[in-house]
Amino acid sequence: MATRVAMTTNINGVDVKRLTDTVAAVKAAPELGSFHFRISNRWTGGGENRSEVLPFSNAGKVVPHKTSFTLIADEPETLLGADNGANPVEHLLHALASCITTSTVYHAAARGIEVQKVESTLEGDLDLRGFLDLDPNVRNGFQNIRVKLRIKANATDEQMRELAQLGPRYSPVFDSVTRGVSVAVSAERL
Amino acid sequence: MATRVAMTTNINGVDVKRLTDTVAAVKAAPELGSFHFRISNRWTGGGENRSEVLPFSNAGKVVPHKTSFTLIADEPETLLGADNGANPVEHLLHALASCITTSTVYHAAARGIEVQKVESTLEGDLDLRGFLDLDPNVRNGFQNIRVKLRIKANATDEQMRELAQLGPRYSPVFDSVTRGVSVAVSAERL
Repeated sequence: MATRVAMTTNINGVDVKRLTDTVAAVKAAPELGSFHFRISNRWTGGGENRSEVLPFSNAGKVVPHKTSFTLIADEPETLLGADNGANPVEHLLHALASCITTSTVYHAAARGIEVQKVESTLEGDLDLRGFLDLDPNVRNGFQNIRVKLRIKANATDEQMRELAQLGPRYSPVFDSVTRGVSVAVSAERL
Repeated sequence: MATRVAMTTNINGVDVKRLTDTVAAVKAAPELGSFHFRISNRWTGGGENRSEVLPFSNAGKVVPHKTSFTLIADEPETLLGADNGANPVEHLLHALASCITTSTVYHAAARGIEVQKVESTLEGDLDLRGFLDLDPNVRNGFQNIRVKLRIKANATDEQMRELAQLGPRYSPVFDSVTRGVSVAVSAERL
């Protein structure tokens, strides 16, 4: 990651000194880059279920979150739910949006580019015939996702083009969603 | 005259009559299966940002959610955030878990299999050297995700094996994450 000495170590709300230190530390000891993120999920009836975010591991050490986070999913009435939460594919869009935003802000900070605003709108196309098993040629998942990013920064046109590329280039969720991830599922009786 | 025993149409909290009607309707008019899901995201400082779930479209009609949903993402302190929310990759795990759960419950209902409990634990492996641009051979996203599913149901062993396959077989997020989705990003100045 390109870094630049800055007078203030806080750019875009990111402590650039700590970011630089993190880069140096992981470079020197690659195992510090090893993370395992975890959640547990429980069905609560019909289309509703809830996840609890569990402590993650970093370099073999378990790190609890500051507070507990409960994430609620449900389906809208059109999809036979009670509409008590965003549905799973909407949560996927949020994961993608949030990761593009954070990747943009962090990597802009590393380059010394101050960003004032980052906003985005995401839209994903889904054909329910996949889920309903009505057409083997229709996939179950999103067919396409469109991201419209809007950035406010005191930046040259060239820097703006660079900013627009930071999310796709670095975001872990963008990479996971566009390139795919191997998911192993095991099941047992409760 | 033979009397037909009134069937309960509610299995697993899912209205199976409506589910069957939905399948028939989409089969007869495939455009009814067309959905566009949308969210907007806004950076709120440092590693934090928030998404609002927008109305979705179904067969060209805009359908608002019953209430507004705000989804918060942040990074833990280890990753230079304030830990005010699950981070983007944890949200991705939630999206995956919730979709597997709902797909299991709905498709079990469609088969007349009553489920008492569905629980899962998910773990995803991530090497930060990707995001930090320290090694071109390390991907930015998850390297692997493991899902441990636990199901309680009055089901034969054969039915249990079938239940365990419903999530991977039908879940839109499972399909999106394992097979990948094309994501188009456009950007403009604010």
